[in-house]
Amino acid sequence: MRDLARAVNLQGGSLYAHIESKEEVLFELVNRAADEFLNHAEAIPANLSPKEHLERLIQGHLEVIVRSLDHATVFFHEWKFLNPELQRKITARRDAYEGHFRKVIEAGVRLGEFEVEDVRLATLFVLSALNWTYHWYRPGGPLTLESLSRHYRDLVFKTLGVRSNRSTSRANGA
Amino acid sequence: MRDLARAVNLQGGSLYAHIESKEEVLFELVNRAADEFLNHAEAIPANLSPKEHLERLIQGHLEVIVRSLDHATVFFHEWKFLNPELQRKITARRDAYEGHFRKVIEAGVRLGEFEVEDVRLATLFVLSALNWTYHWYRPGGPLTLESLSRHYRDLVFKTLGVRSNRSTSRANGA
Repeated sequence: MRDLARAVNLQGGSLYAHIESKEEVLFELVNRAADEFLNHAEAIPANLSPKEHLERLIQGHLEVIVRSLDHATVFFHEWKFLNPELQRKITARRDAYEGHFRKVIEAGVRLGEFEVEDVRLATLFVLSALNWTYHWYRPGGPLTLESLSRHYRDLVFKTLGVRSNRSTSRANGA
Repeated sequence: MRDLARAVNLQGGSLYAHIESKEEVLFELVNRAADEFLNHAEAIPANLSPKEHLERLIQGHLEVIVRSLDHATVFFHEWKFLNPELQRKITARRDAYEGHFRKVIEAGVRLGEFEVEDVRLATLFVLSALNWTYHWYRPGGPLTLESLSRHYRDLVFKTLGVRSNRSTSRANGA
């Protein structure tokens, strides 16, 4: 309980005063991790093209994972240990987050920027590839976040049938 | 301990006689999961083209995950709870398995079947996308293993810059 109190920046005593069970502390941690992912996604300007929008989503997603590997683990795994009611709250936020990716891929297909057979499966495939990063990425290693983001953006663009990802790459000075 | 004995098909008593610690039981479980993945990969005929070979690797990988979600979870996560010596043994098998994917992608690039900028990152990206399946796939749901495999093969082929994945699809009667 003391470890959890430290993790949420509270004294052990005041933590007990505020929060009734370990499960609520876990919910708080998972929910804050959800905030990190969602804040990034919601801060992206609405006037971008689907390609530009998706590029920002990829960068933000990898940044949250790489900068806070612990929070990513909590977001991806620990929510399973919540009771059904708290799990539903988190699932709704996870769905909302996944929705950011799905909607931009749908928009890209509609505007002819992406060529995708099944948007739902393509979204899952892309998010899966990004999520797994927390298993193998080591901050401080030879692969910088910037280089990872650029490579993964190019791979996602290929997956989604974008033809001119090289020109985007140059336009952004990468 | 009784649960573990059941999981490895042994009586509680004989389990204690054979295996010294819970850690060895865990090692046994992780190692058997590794067998499932590696057996599939090693059974693929050597005379296939990189594209055909990769298609078999994808099918086998998804089949092991979907048919035994528990084993996949053990293989992907529980090995982290082993001691360093046992972890090294599993890491060697994980690396060998990843090597099957990396080598066939390398061969595809060499033969001009695939167009990939960074083979290591492309391999990680593809395996990540496949691995995450155990998080969301529900056996008995509307998406069959066959349909998932076909869609994911097409997405992987696009990721790796294969141009003619439709023709492969038809040649296999999919």
